[in-house]
Amino acid sequence: MVSHVVADEKTLLLSKKAGCNSHGQDSSYFLGWQEYEKNPFDPVSNPSGIIQMGLAENQLSFDMVETWLEKNPDALGLRREGGASVFRELALFQDYHGLPVFKNALARFMSEQRGHKVAFDPSNIVLTAGATSANEALMFCLADHGDAFLIPTPYYPGFDRDLKWRTGAEIVPVHCTSANGFRVTRAALDDAYRRAQKRRLRVKGVLITNPSNPLGTTAPRADLETVVEFVAAKGIHLVSDEIYSGTAFGEPGFVSVLEVVAEREGAAAASDVSDRVHIVYSLSKDLGLPGFRVGAIYSSNAAVVSAATKMSSFGLISSQTQYLLAALLGDKDFTRSYVAENKRRIKERHDQLVDGLREVGIGCLESNAGLFCWVDMSHLMRSRSFAGEMELWKKVVFEVGLNISPGSSCHCREPGWFRVCFANMSAKTLDVAMQRLRSFVESTASAVPARSISCPIAIKWALRLAPSSADRKAER
Amino acid sequence: MVSHVVADEKTLLLSKKAGCNSHGQDSSYFLGWQEYEKNPFDPVSNPSGIIQMGLAENQLSFDMVETWLEKNPDALGLRREGGASVFRELALFQDYHGLPVFKNALARFMSEQRGHKVAFDPSNIVLTAGATSANEALMFCLADHGDAFLIPTPYYPGFDRDLKWRTGAEIVPVHCTSANGFRVTRAALDDAYRRAQKRRLRVKGVLITNPSNPLGTTAPRADLETVVEFVAAKGIHLVSDEIYSGTAFGEPGFVSVLEVVAEREGAAAASDVSDRVHIVYSLSKDLGLPGFRVGAIYSSNAAVVSAATKMSSFGLISSQTQYLLAALLGDKDFTRSYVAENKRRIKERHDQLVDGLREVGIGCLESNAGLFCWVDMSHLMRSRSFAGEMELWKKVVFEVGLNISPGSSCHCREPGWFRVCFANMSAKTLDVAMQRLRSFVESTASAVPARSISCPIAIKWALRLAPSSADRKAER
Repeated sequence: MVSHVVADEKTLLLSKKAGCNSHGQDSSYFLGWQEYEKNPFDPVSNPSGIIQMGLAENQLSFDMVETWLEKNPDALGLRREGGASVFRELALFQDYHGLPVFKNALARFMSEQRGHKVAFDPSNIVLTAGATSANEALMFCLADHGDAFLIPTPYYPGFDRDLKWRTGAEIVPVHCTSANGFRVTRAALDDAYRRAQKRRLRVKGVLITNPSNPLGTTAPRADLETVVEFVAAKGIHLVSDEIYSGTAFGEPGFVSVLEVVAEREGAAAASDVSDRVHIVYSLSKDLGLPGFRVGAIYSSNAAVVSAATKMSSFGLISSQTQYLLAALLGDKDFTRSYVAENKRRIKERHDQLVDGLREVGIGCLESNAGLFCWVDMSHLMRSRSFAGEMELWKKVVFEVGLNISPGSSCHCREPGWFRVCFANMSAKTLDVAMQRLRSFVESTASAVPARSISCPIAIKWALRLAPSSADRKAER
Repeated sequence: MVSHVVADEKTLLLSKKAGCNSHGQDSSYFLGWQEYEKNPFDPVSNPSGIIQMGLAENQLSFDMVETWLEKNPDALGLRREGGASVFRELALFQDYHGLPVFKNALARFMSEQRGHKVAFDPSNIVLTAGATSANEALMFCLADHGDAFLIPTPYYPGFDRDLKWRTGAEIVPVHCTSANGFRVTRAALDDAYRRAQKRRLRVKGVLITNPSNPLGTTAPRADLETVVEFVAAKGIHLVSDEIYSGTAFGEPGFVSVLEVVAEREGAAAASDVSDRVHIVYSLSKDLGLPGFRVGAIYSSNAAVVSAATKMSSFGLISSQTQYLLAALLGDKDFTRSYVAENKRRIKERHDQLVDGLREVGIGCLESNAGLFCWVDMSHLMRSRSFAGEMELWKKVVFEVGLNISPGSSCHCREPGWFRVCFANMSAKTLDVAMQRLRSFVESTASAVPARSISCPIAIKWALRLAPSSADRKAER
């Protein structure tokens, strides 16, 4: 009769999943979005609104796609060359293996993104409605309720929803630190494995993002070798989420884990690890098309491809969209010039952010990929703690008007780091953001001068992901 | 070292889901499709191939959609009236609440399909990549591993995959029989409930398809009242899959369960059942667009809408497709004429099948909706058993060259029934199918004359789903 009792009864009638919050959407990562939506910046209509720097969106290269669409109206118009409509055919297309012409074009594009060093067999591709769906389907294929995947921190906040919520799988963090630029080490992997065992979880694999979200760095070849060696030794899976592969704009370039696996096989390493390495891809970042929901799983494991293909029934890509993108990705001249120019623009925007931050005394992890930087604002916190990080984050969102993502939402163990996105706005808006940050830092500096001066910026700038010459040797 | 051990080890590394066959795709329903794909009928290039009568696809009204597209090129071209491109906006659209303009148009269309007797609030709609995804998401919201839903038989073979496979929920059949035209009764519901309890399963709800797949019948109002009364009494959920609502071509017309619920509420029935009734919808059947992956959940339960919306991340509809369909469904003149003409054509094709079957002495359940008939071929079986059904089915697929779906794949308890689809082919192809069936029946009749003559066809023809006049009174 009392209202909260009624609410409880109603909740009890739903599943535990529906009621629990392991979808992670109460985290500051998503809460920041909500704040942004209440008061979004617009240079003309709302110049004091919040600037969205929490969204890893690529708006830099649409003009190239738009120009292509103007020249190729049949792709949108669902017509063959010559004018015959394929509408009927597409409307009825229900084969969850996907449109062959699209899978072929996607396989070629994925290979192009990897410098043609890896070949993709279209029959090993499972199409999914975005990488979100691809990651979840892979978990459903590889892990039972209570099984665990090890994931290096910091990691994408959405993984708690994507990998755990409906599958019942667990994530055990592999703690990485700023001491080595957040690189994954064998010791950190072993430590995570032991912690999982203590929790009586069966470890089924490791999941990495390469290029890393939120670090904005490509995994050095040596680190990939470390991870592959680890999964080979433990007899577990490796999922490599490579949805940012086309954003790698600087040295050392992007290396797909498939290259490392192929080299092991070439060297006759006694291992069938290739059967346990699975790639997640998407066109949301590299082509800037999140609205079109185009993701993919790539695996050489026939059982995984078979099960994931059946699961793809729950999240197929519209055939209309497959047709459009088959034409776009099938145009090699377009993809070649797009890939190069897109990277050039990402680098330019990245440099604008990094330079702007440096001018106000804020350092960030040296990065060479992604649509964001991993920014150290620890010297601006009143206390070096996660409470201090939250306090600073709220100031930056509500007072400075920048929605950035706190490191704690990415499960970073060191307070004071933030993911700051740069590719979802104009250069002018990024300038406004930098001006706001400057005012904020100056006011903070006058308030707590000692803290900001004490921060060893020079050291932070020296954090490098590019391997040293010693590393380079070790890689061979 | 031995190969099957290696295979086992590999299998062990995957999840139980990946290895098990509760996706149901080894059933004869899907196996028939595979046979069809090996040898598909084509009037010119493969006139002796298998005719696909196992696919509930609506190909009858494409010309109307095509004509509309010709007149409204901006919908495909992603342009606003006036010519400005919305490509960029759509490419970036990531709000999993869906395009407001599309949800509004869909809500209105759903209301139109229900004769405007039910109003739909767009904010209670959750968009999903097809009804497959909608049904699974609802199960994830309503049932935990080991919870059960009661489903009247015969039911759509895909439900085993959609509802059980990844969720861990169980289906307990509500056994319906030809004695009353496979209508759902309170006794059958109670019996299923008891069986679930015996299995120590917690019953979380009932799921019905209305119009029924595979029966091709709309649920009489009295039956809906029976079901609603049952779920109200038990305090459980009701999912009504209404993806065939726009195919109801004959009397008694389609009644949505929402009408029945609204009437209960109006009559101040002491019940909050409206919070526990959820609708699944899709444009795959009513508009014939399965390739575009457009499904929806409709619920007045805020917690279900909230959880399902978050889950929709795993299967969103391409924004390109949402834009196109917002324009199409937003055209009231188009939808009005489409809905009427589409039903007229379905009825015409339905009558062609029923007449053709009658001519060769085959009866079917009287039906008024759907893209298929529920056909009784029990008199053609050599034994009245499921073995006999399988034997007949194989003959029909391999010798007669018609892929129809055996009742056993729909969990029907009486052997000898088959679902036969009629709207995924031309009238001419349907003629060929009827000719083939005639030859087969004649050869069978000469071989086992007694059996075919002994079959009480007249009685089967008398099976009625339309309520008798006595029922009609009871309905009020």
